[in-house]
Amino acid sequence: MSAHDSIRPIRWTQDALELLDQRLLPGEERYLRYARSAEVAAAIRDMVVRGAPAIGISAAFGVVLAVREARQEAAEDWRAALEPKLEALARARPTAINLFWALSRLRRCLETAADPEAAALAEAQAIYEEDLAANLYMGEQGAALMDGQGAVITHCNTGSLATAGYGTALGVIRSAYSAGKITRVYADETRPWLQGARLTAWELVKDRIPVSLVADSAAPFLMSKGEITWTIVGADRITANGDVANKIGTYGLALAARAHGLKFMVVAPSSTIDWTLDTGADIPIEDRAADELLSIQGQRIAAEGAEAWNPVFDVTPARLVDVLVTELGVVHRPSAESMAKLKDKESTWRI
Amino acid sequence: MSAHDSIRPIRWTQDALELLDQRLLPGEERYLRYARSAEVAAAIRDMVVRGAPAIGISAAFGVVLAVREARQEAAEDWRAALEPKLEALARARPTAINLFWALSRLRRCLETAADPEAAALAEAQAIYEEDLAANLYMGEQGAALMDGQGAVITHCNTGSLATAGYGTALGVIRSAYSAGKITRVYADETRPWLQGARLTAWELVKDRIPVSLVADSAAPFLMSKGEITWTIVGADRITANGDVANKIGTYGLALAARAHGLKFMVVAPSSTIDWTLDTGADIPIEDRAADELLSIQGQRIAAEGAEAWNPVFDVTPARLVDVLVTELGVVHRPSAESMAKLKDKESTWRI
Repeated sequence: MSAHDSIRPIRWTQDALELLDQRLLPGEERYLRYARSAEVAAAIRDMVVRGAPAIGISAAFGVVLAVREARQEAAEDWRAALEPKLEALARARPTAINLFWALSRLRRCLETAADPEAAALAEAQAIYEEDLAANLYMGEQGAALMDGQGAVITHCNTGSLATAGYGTALGVIRSAYSAGKITRVYADETRPWLQGARLTAWELVKDRIPVSLVADSAAPFLMSKGEITWTIVGADRITANGDVANKIGTYGLALAARAHGLKFMVVAPSSTIDWTLDTGADIPIEDRAADELLSIQGQRIAAEGAEAWNPVFDVTPARLVDVLVTELGVVHRPSAESMAKLKDKESTWRI
Repeated sequence: MSAHDSIRPIRWTQDALELLDQRLLPGEERYLRYARSAEVAAAIRDMVVRGAPAIGISAAFGVVLAVREARQEAAEDWRAALEPKLEALARARPTAINLFWALSRLRRCLETAADPEAAALAEAQAIYEEDLAANLYMGEQGAALMDGQGAVITHCNTGSLATAGYGTALGVIRSAYSAGKITRVYADETRPWLQGARLTAWELVKDRIPVSLVADSAAPFLMSKGEITWTIVGADRITANGDVANKIGTYGLALAARAHGLKFMVVAPSSTIDWTLDTGADIPIEDRAADELLSIQGQRIAAEGAEAWNPVFDVTPARLVDVLVTELGVVHRPSAESMAKLKDKESTWRI
């Protein structure tokens, strides 16, 4: 690991999955241990782990546990016993496509495996290793697109905590900072979960990259000041035309970046691309509890009787994206046509 | 007061100023009593009272207390004793022009007054009454601009709590709701002080107008859904060309509204207009403590070592404003030329 890369939130040790509990950061660094697949599904749902790639990797290790359980419960008929466990993992979060992608990779590998548990573990570990390698590669590719030196702004957390390690958008930021191209990272605090304040700021401080928090609503004014060069974000699902579902607020950042003539970069592994959906209008968007807005730190802040609309993601149309960085290559001004070329490369990338 | 207008946060009783402590809302409705001008300055600085018109009115009553104190301290030389007290009031908050406007009105009336304390009180009460009347009038004018029926979005708190009563932007919303033109109000929670969650939601619930909170960053996605018709906001200072300083986040809302072809209305009394400044670039923007972002409810949420940029206001250029509603009249597409016509009417409006 380089000087600006020290965090690994997911680890498989002694036949169990360990996840850094992201709900406790930055106050406490505690790994929770999961030996049952249903517990992994709950950990994903309850946001012990979050971030599209990290959700996919955790689910993959959840399948390893599920296979072990199924074979203990029904040696002969273990495939029938496995199915509801996979469905429970699939139901944990609805928007990040990486979850379904990881489950489908595991299903495929189990079809022919002689030793299902060993095969599932090898596949989950491959997903983990490929994600880490993809992030390091995307980091280089994204940083190479940046000229000169300036500040950047990012949204939510797309770093080591959202992946196997290094990060997607934050991976590009790590690489560009190491290359001397970034002076300061502005991190949106990212209401309502405050992933920017709690997670991104923690990662960057820990890895010695200068970071300033801003209220989400301050980003357009910041852009008007002339210090920002790039807006760099991740993605939870990208459709075949290049539309991007990502944490709520990404769309407004993209509109503001375009209004100021600033470049907007999306960084995501190809597992984030849902080739079955034509446009972002088809992406299911998760609504979370109104209470995430009506209360703060468990204390009610809004008057009784007030309602709330709390979508977790929004959709940024491809026309607002200047460049999409994936491990398969870089797509400038994504469109159905340019994305199709990426699809052709899909089987070519291997670590 | 109408069915949808029940709150008066500022009152003068028994020779003292009483302010509804907005820091305690919505949990507790408590009026604090101020009998000294320095206490009023502190109350403005500490945000017991906030909102540009309410700051101006409170400062005006602060001058009444200051005159009384000055005459007790130095019967002959009371004008010299008064000056530092007025300066303390002027230093309380830097951006809202209404504060300086109110102080200058009080200074003018004191120049010739035979009974200074009585004259100051009469002038402060006139400012209060004019503000209330202006809000009721602007409410009608703004509502008349709205066709059909739909949802609106607003930012921060511009209601009874920000004024003598009824509100500026929220006054238009009250009038339009009473006229059957509004189905629902979406209120930005308005980080970092959460005026939308704590104050606007409270006002609207209390006055029986349906309200849904949204994260500030969700507003552009909400606008893309088609339910919103108008964005309606207040102002802390407007320059001679129609640029608008208002709560941080207003500029991003204006950019998003324009991108979706939605109308953007600014509602503010003419006391908010600073005719001495040509453009918004000249407006002093208050930065508040980084801790407002680094902590929530007194609990540190961001890693030690993280910094924060916390401007309280941003500037929306006039070209993004569809209509400015003042008590002197309505300005469509404000510009230096159209604003100058408003200036000509400045002395014509009287309650």
